[in-house]
Amino acid sequence: MKRKAVDAVEPTPMKPVRQTALEPGSMDAVQLANGFWGDLQAQNAKVTLPHEIKWLEKSGALANFDRICEDPDNRGHVGMQFIDSDVYKVLEALAWEFGRTQDPGLQQNIDTLLERVLPVVADDGYLNTAFGHPGRPARYSDMEWGHELYCAGHLIQAGVARLRTGFDSQDPLVALSLRVADHVCAAFGEGNRIGGHPEIEVALVELYRATGSGRYLDQAKAFVDRRGYGTLADIEFGRSYFQDDVPVRKADVLRGHAVRALYLAAGAIDVAVEEGDSELFSAVERQYQRALDRRTYITGGMGSHHQDEAFGDDFELPPDRAYCETCAGIASVMVAWRLLLATGDLRYGDVIERTLYNIVATSVSQAGDQFFYANPLQQRALNRTMPPDVSSPRASSELRASWFYVPCCPPNYSRTLAQLASYVTSHTADSIQLIQYMAGTIEEELSAAGTVKLRVETNYPYDSAVKIFVEQAPTDKSWKLDLRIPQWCKGATLSINSKVELAPDGVASIHGLRTGQYVVLDLPVEPRFVYPDPRIDAVRGCVAVEKGPLVMCAESVDQPGGTDVGLIEVDVSRGIDDTSGAVQVYGRKLDMDARPDEWAYSGSPFVPEARQSMVKLSPYCCWGNRGPVTMRVWLPTSSTRTSGGKTR
Amino acid sequence: MKRKAVDAVEPTPMKPVRQTALEPGSMDAVQLANGFWGDLQAQNAKVTLPHEIKWLEKSGALANFDRICEDPDNRGHVGMQFIDSDVYKVLEALAWEFGRTQDPGLQQNIDTLLERVLPVVADDGYLNTAFGHPGRPARYSDMEWGHELYCAGHLIQAGVARLRTGFDSQDPLVALSLRVADHVCAAFGEGNRIGGHPEIEVALVELYRATGSGRYLDQAKAFVDRRGYGTLADIEFGRSYFQDDVPVRKADVLRGHAVRALYLAAGAIDVAVEEGDSELFSAVERQYQRALDRRTYITGGMGSHHQDEAFGDDFELPPDRAYCETCAGIASVMVAWRLLLATGDLRYGDVIERTLYNIVATSVSQAGDQFFYANPLQQRALNRTMPPDVSSPRASSELRASWFYVPCCPPNYSRTLAQLASYVTSHTADSIQLIQYMAGTIEEELSAAGTVKLRVETNYPYDSAVKIFVEQAPTDKSWKLDLRIPQWCKGATLSINSKVELAPDGVASIHGLRTGQYVVLDLPVEPRFVYPDPRIDAVRGCVAVEKGPLVMCAESVDQPGGTDVGLIEVDVSRGIDDTSGAVQVYGRKLDMDARPDEWAYSGSPFVPEARQSMVKLSPYCCWGNRGPVTMRVWLPTSSTRTSGGKTR
Repeated sequence: MKRKAVDAVEPTPMKPVRQTALEPGSMDAVQLANGFWGDLQAQNAKVTLPHEIKWLEKSGALANFDRICEDPDNRGHVGMQFIDSDVYKVLEALAWEFGRTQDPGLQQNIDTLLERVLPVVADDGYLNTAFGHPGRPARYSDMEWGHELYCAGHLIQAGVARLRTGFDSQDPLVALSLRVADHVCAAFGEGNRIGGHPEIEVALVELYRATGSGRYLDQAKAFVDRRGYGTLADIEFGRSYFQDDVPVRKADVLRGHAVRALYLAAGAIDVAVEEGDSELFSAVERQYQRALDRRTYITGGMGSHHQDEAFGDDFELPPDRAYCETCAGIASVMVAWRLLLATGDLRYGDVIERTLYNIVATSVSQAGDQFFYANPLQQRALNRTMPPDVSSPRASSELRASWFYVPCCPPNYSRTLAQLASYVTSHTADSIQLIQYMAGTIEEELSAAGTVKLRVETNYPYDSAVKIFVEQAPTDKSWKLDLRIPQWCKGATLSINSKVELAPDGVASIHGLRTGQYVVLDLPVEPRFVYPDPRIDAVRGCVAVEKGPLVMCAESVDQPGGTDVGLIEVDVSRGIDDTSGAVQVYGRKLDMDARPDEWAYSGSPFVPEARQSMVKLSPYCCWGNRGPVTMRVWLPTSSTRTSGGKTR
Repeated sequence: MKRKAVDAVEPTPMKPVRQTALEPGSMDAVQLANGFWGDLQAQNAKVTLPHEIKWLEKSGALANFDRICEDPDNRGHVGMQFIDSDVYKVLEALAWEFGRTQDPGLQQNIDTLLERVLPVVADDGYLNTAFGHPGRPARYSDMEWGHELYCAGHLIQAGVARLRTGFDSQDPLVALSLRVADHVCAAFGEGNRIGGHPEIEVALVELYRATGSGRYLDQAKAFVDRRGYGTLADIEFGRSYFQDDVPVRKADVLRGHAVRALYLAAGAIDVAVEEGDSELFSAVERQYQRALDRRTYITGGMGSHHQDEAFGDDFELPPDRAYCETCAGIASVMVAWRLLLATGDLRYGDVIERTLYNIVATSVSQAGDQFFYANPLQQRALNRTMPPDVSSPRASSELRASWFYVPCCPPNYSRTLAQLASYVTSHTADSIQLIQYMAGTIEEELSAAGTVKLRVETNYPYDSAVKIFVEQAPTDKSWKLDLRIPQWCKGATLSINSKVELAPDGVASIHGLRTGQYVVLDLPVEPRFVYPDPRIDAVRGCVAVEKGPLVMCAESVDQPGGTDVGLIEVDVSRGIDDTSGAVQVYGRKLDMDARPDEWAYSGSPFVPEARQSMVKLSPYCCWGNRGPVTMRVWLPTSSTRTSGGKTR
């Protein structure tokens, strides 16, 4: 499928100041084939999206729209005040998925959902079921928690998905999103009001890019500039919760509610790139970089607190109470992607890869119809199984659930999977960057070099070899293929025309490949120990194991006798055994039964009896698919305990 | 002051089945003198209680009562729906304090507060400002969160304080509490309803004890028996949040909201003791014991979660996000005290001592007018100072605050301090147990032995000597003085008539002391290292230092150059130096500046440069009194890091 030209809806000229190092691949540049991600994407279309549509109905989210029209008193709005947004995220996912596959069933789903939504939009473009109707609070009467702008943002992103997959303003979803966006611009053009949950910012810039209409960019910029001056109330968690404590261009680090902080960062970067605002850009890049260095889990997960779903202090990264909301992982991918394009620094691709495998892919069940909301790195007590027909009120301490009272994560997963191909490549006038190693085909029109067609064959990350076949290359122009070499990877090699050489760090650039040639990139995925910064108190004396981009974990179900993994420790000096197909470390099972139940603090270290036992590890992204378990990513080392004992 | 005889309000006979090993000292048996606790108690009366009365007015808690009478539409109820309870807790504190000192100003305070409260009570004894009035939700329409029974419980406890300090049903506060209790019995005698927040149970048993009226005991028993059958809604945190998941006599461990769990435990023990219900008693003792062994901080603090103010899983005890609500510490003292009396096991006195020093005394500022709500064991970033006129919406991440949106802790502290003397001794027909070593005088009438008068002189816990002068002892009867020997104490000695001997473990019993004799108990308070159970992941490779019953901590303000205590580690092998008057350990300051800001996880352990530096420690109960600091109780040991590095 080729993109149709987009009719600019309002002929405001694009601002000429846009500054970015790389351009994103077009939506149809990459088609995924069978493999880790291609399979998940296919499952998303076949299982996950229908599951979500079912739950939009079952949970009453869709009935909220019907009720506005059918019941003048509007009794019984169901769910959170921002539940409309989940309908819009499913619409967005359907739009990307239809763009990808042209499956008419998906178009029918879009039509059916829109039939319910469209009658609710007011004449002036206001659209919300929870506010502004008889029996409901007034429009914009609760800027802290009402989330009307957040909902509008998600609706607009659904419209953007249509615009970017070949539709124009004749499409009902595009038309609706434009009406909503115009209403937002009209209602919030003047004044200093902002919404409690950022999202509208990134949506408006995306709409600007898709339409060329500068008012959307101006409005996004206004929302970014207004934030940080204490316009919102000083709530229980402080104004840092919604980043209204410090102006965006003054802050040093991401803080407060992680999803809010990351959506805001994505929107602010977009504004900075389009406006050529290097001060704003540097500020947000600095904030994200510091959050990456000091407030991010080994999984790429962000947000340490359950209470306020927030980043904690620097190095406050408890594994058991890690929140690591799935949506925060998705938002971090959004931010890293924007920074990659703007700076041309492919190391942001490492962050994306880590987060995609260890948060996004982790969140969904093997069957595709249950989800983690939080992604902790340790499960202490056997978690509960959630029946398939139950919507979970909780964000943690149970296995994946079919749905949630706040069901933000499942449709966020789906819209990400449906547009996943857009994260695979970027390009310039004469180069393509291959950023994620997913099996599939790539076709890009380079403005200064012509058409490039590539085919990627790989079983990565389970296998180290990535084969890139050049199916079409410019014959008379110089062009370049950039390959991201992950920072975790030692000894990566590159084979071109059977000549093997060591790949450089960071990025390997190959010039002038011709049609019919192929490249084999070998990224050794041997398991390796990883050590935490000593300031991360919560995992002192522990190691983790990674294998390629996959963080590994120990699940009780894999240990001899189903041993609780709270009672193991590993001997790092003996290395890692992966000769048997499974990844195993040399460990000991502590016999804590020998310790009587007593006060847990004593004048001498307790040195438990222990017996040797291999500890089997499996990818964290697969955990919790075999019933209740205990699980841990960070493995205590035996040296810690023993030397602790000997120091007296 | 001697107790007046209490007129039994309803002449229902006491049930004869009461089973308890020890009887509590009467309220006026112990008078504290100057010293750690006597000074705090005096400050409580002089500073803290007036401060709280001021804030009851300033926060609008008292105006809520006025409004019921003055505004028929009752517009503008202020604060949480259970804010009445804080007025009642202050009333209770005033009642105990008046009982102790007979200060007429305190009686005037009681009268003034009661003038505001009394007009609100309904004809049938219902008393609440948030429910059951025009413009407010109906009575008992929200059993999960309405907390009407919780408020009634606190009002009843204020009445009990009056009954136990010499008043009878002629006293307006006693009369009010009886009306409220009778209403509760009438409204909840039948059916299966329970309140979301236990408290009524313990209050009703105390009222039964003070009046002899069995209906109060029956009602308390009914509330205990009804809990655990899922009568309350399945809220976000699950029914374990309010202990409605498992019947009280079936549960294995305290769980859910810590204050709720502990108030319930206190009430259930009271019911079990009065009913001679050994099954119920054993169940609650087992639950508390397991919570002590597996879910309690070294400070005695309970409750690991901020989100739901709940116990976590076994050994889930993060120091930085420790919640350890002050009220949970107080409630734990209540439970341990009841278990001590019922079982005669003075080791529960160790728990009380630990919790009093390290939670209760910690919660209040040196000046007596600001409070910690949460009591974390680590402060990572400099905490915020709270202005004195600001009510804090938050429970953490700042220094002590003058008041809180949910102001449960300050008045709970005050009622505990005002009745503190009641935790000092217990007795039998012919023995006295000296449980807490506080300077003061003791006078108890032993039914089988006669009057005993003791005077305790000590600067404990800053000094190890506790001198006990026998000012009056039975001349013709055998009697016994039991002295608690804390489990933390090694080498305690006892000197009677200048003969020094090693004290036995647990309890030292001295028989037949005569008038004029004295005993010197020496409890060496040398600082010592304490090691955590290896299952407490969050403090692996760390030690703490205790000195007597005091947990010590490192504050940045005490370190050379104000070093952030996140960057220190200690060498346990070199011991502890307290020769200079200060407690110091041999440490190193890590130079993390040498590490560039980068991804926090790497293939080899980062071994920072470090320079030798003594680490000065001070009592945790005094922390946060000198402006913003970083602080830690658990100190990483250098052996951990180094050997972690060498194991590769």
